[in-house]
Amino acid sequence: MTTVVKKFGGSSVGSIERIQRVADRVIADRKNNARIVVVVSAMGDTTDELVSMAGQISESPDPREYDALISTGENISAALLSMTLISKGQPAISLSGMQAGVMTDGRHVKAKILDVKPQRIEKELDEGKVVIVTGFQGINTKDFNITTIGRGGSDTSAVVLAAALNQSECEIYTDVDGVYTTDPRMEKGARKLTEISYDEMLELASLGAKVLHPRAVEVAKENGIELHVRSSFESSEGTRVKEASSMEVNKPVTGIALKKDEAKLSIIHIPDQPGVAGKVFSTLADAGVNVDMIVQSTEQDGSNTITFTVSKDEYADASKVTNEVATALKAAKVDGDTTIAKVSIVGVGMISKPGIAARMFNCLGKNGINIQLITTSEIKVSCAIDESQGELAVQVLHAEFELDRE
Amino acid sequence: MTTVVKKFGGSSVGSIERIQRVADRVIADRKNNARIVVVVSAMGDTTDELVSMAGQISESPDPREYDALISTGENISAALLSMTLISKGQPAISLSGMQAGVMTDGRHVKAKILDVKPQRIEKELDEGKVVIVTGFQGINTKDFNITTIGRGGSDTSAVVLAAALNQSECEIYTDVDGVYTTDPRMEKGARKLTEISYDEMLELASLGAKVLHPRAVEVAKENGIELHVRSSFESSEGTRVKEASSMEVNKPVTGIALKKDEAKLSIIHIPDQPGVAGKVFSTLADAGVNVDMIVQSTEQDGSNTITFTVSKDEYADASKVTNEVATALKAAKVDGDTTIAKVSIVGVGMISKPGIAARMFNCLGKNGINIQLITTSEIKVSCAIDESQGELAVQVLHAEFELDRE
Repeated sequence: MTTVVKKFGGSSVGSIERIQRVADRVIADRKNNARIVVVVSAMGDTTDELVSMAGQISESPDPREYDALISTGENISAALLSMTLISKGQPAISLSGMQAGVMTDGRHVKAKILDVKPQRIEKELDEGKVVIVTGFQGINTKDFNITTIGRGGSDTSAVVLAAALNQSECEIYTDVDGVYTTDPRMEKGARKLTEISYDEMLELASLGAKVLHPRAVEVAKENGIELHVRSSFESSEGTRVKEASSMEVNKPVTGIALKKDEAKLSIIHIPDQPGVAGKVFSTLADAGVNVDMIVQSTEQDGSNTITFTVSKDEYADASKVTNEVATALKAAKVDGDTTIAKVSIVGVGMISKPGIAARMFNCLGKNGINIQLITTSEIKVSCAIDESQGELAVQVLHAEFELDRE
Repeated sequence: MTTVVKKFGGSSVGSIERIQRVADRVIADRKNNARIVVVVSAMGDTTDELVSMAGQISESPDPREYDALISTGENISAALLSMTLISKGQPAISLSGMQAGVMTDGRHVKAKILDVKPQRIEKELDEGKVVIVTGFQGINTKDFNITTIGRGGSDTSAVVLAAALNQSECEIYTDVDGVYTTDPRMEKGARKLTEISYDEMLELASLGAKVLHPRAVEVAKENGIELHVRSSFESSEGTRVKEASSMEVNKPVTGIALKKDEAKLSIIHIPDQPGVAGKVFSTLADAGVNVDMIVQSTEQDGSNTITFTVSKDEYADASKVTNEVATALKAAKVDGDTTIAKVSIVGVGMISKPGIAARMFNCLGKNGINIQLITTSEIKVSCAIDESQGELAVQVLHAEFELDRE
């Protein structure tokens, strides 16, 4: 039986007025679909406000209580949406993670959904109700404590529910009308994609495109669920995220992402000795610093220079640890730079078309943009550049790969 | 085993700073009591804000969703208090109504607690934790929907939990330091009572003394649980609410209450016929109007005049229904007055001392206060008077019955 699963994000339910619009939309869609499950995030800034209260109590609040606290935002929005549907004559019911049977492991703050027992959802659907499920939360199987599954978790909740209900599609409603070739605020020629592969979406999401959470894309890929990313405020078709095999690929590059707020650290002239890189990065990992791009070069005198990037908010910690390691390794010095951006081209088409990376480097060079570090994957090339040239880089690459044209 | 049950109201947990103070107080008390259960209300105005959101959606929001919505306030305060205790080194855990095993009937908005299954609470207490339970909420036994038990319900939750844990006492922390002979804002000589009987407290609470919810007093009386009403902000002893039989009663009157915002309606000259009063009040009841005081008098011509009071916010509805009934009964006319107050003296001592009511009437008369209606119970005499003389009535009666003296 077809059950349509729709997820509405925090800005889509950010006020009573917007909740009314979501309700109208759900009611309109009910003419085509008898069975509708809606997954909601917390209203607007609710979660941020709850996080801020916890922050006033402790820098590291107890994770179980933190989850009990921040999960309330979704309870509020789910009850309000259900109440609105009912007041408009559409039978509905809101279900918490517990009531909806969303079972997770015991980790708090970033729990993993282990199983969904959809009996209650099915029962309420059978009774003709629209079922509103709180995103982001579940309960652990052991002692029924409330867990949350991490920021952006409502996307994942929706996909998991679609899988549990044996559906092949999940609609993600958001405040933009789809996935674009790049951020339209940076490049006016940015074009909405009608479809994109899971892997490309994963890369773009990981690179900071906030339209979908990477974990939701992963779960969708694993379960073969097509995601339809579309606007909460318009009825037009959005972007479908699906298997690459089912898509016609014309261009080598599908999208361009820019990640600002990066920082760079270089350990200069480390005397030659085995296992240098291992020592540096295991020490950083132990300190909880996430390293992104890495380049190691050997100088003519046999010494090594290791350069890597971290996000700017981890720069202070990373710099401290790096200086300690550098001293221990008898390196000449550590250089730092907090004005770095990372520009990336992403596309499944580049697998079969050689020379795409070179074309990117040439394009950037021709436009006076100096490349500081490079990393590549099968479907992505990323370059660290000066932050001030980030938007320019997006614009020239968007033109180079003709992303403004169908 | 002694388990101390403490209830903290909305103003006591109204900010992070106040929650910190509650936590300090609980930790200090833990030196004397190994097992502590804390019942909390929602922070300050949280519930009012949630109610207002529901009001924007519908005048009569769906009751199940209304409960799912407004119960979140207690989840927030419970998690914050538990988090605060843990951050101060005191193991603690917050439990929702569901997790604490608070089972209610299926009515929403004013559910009745049927049973508490305290196994989880006992288990957490055995592990050395302070257990924080959300007041005001439970789940229905049938399908685990969240229910709420009405305004002031957290007092009742605390008393019910004390009973379920086989305790003989329950501490109610509030923003005043006990129960007073009358409202200290009206009478400077108002004195804090060291003890008061359940029945007196019930009368005072029903008459608008907001320090305790009447239902909580009823449940305490039924289960023989002594209530200790005391200040959240001071450590002094408050007022103990207990069986009258265990108290030494010296005075005929224990306290004086004033209820403003009353209104009066009179149906004048109803031609004599059987069942007149029954017709009037069953019609008002069908219209959902709560009638308080009633007086019926027979005129010399055999016709009847019926006078009664309602709360001012029900006056418009009551007036409409009353006029319809008056027309049907061929009464001469309906008079209305919206400037009525009700002053009451309450005391178990008046049972054994005759003439207390007469002393009240004389005192009011001597002070130029005209009595419009009178009702009495075993331990209470109430007089409807003009609203402008309400505070004067409290003051002269407080002096008459020497309530400022021990």
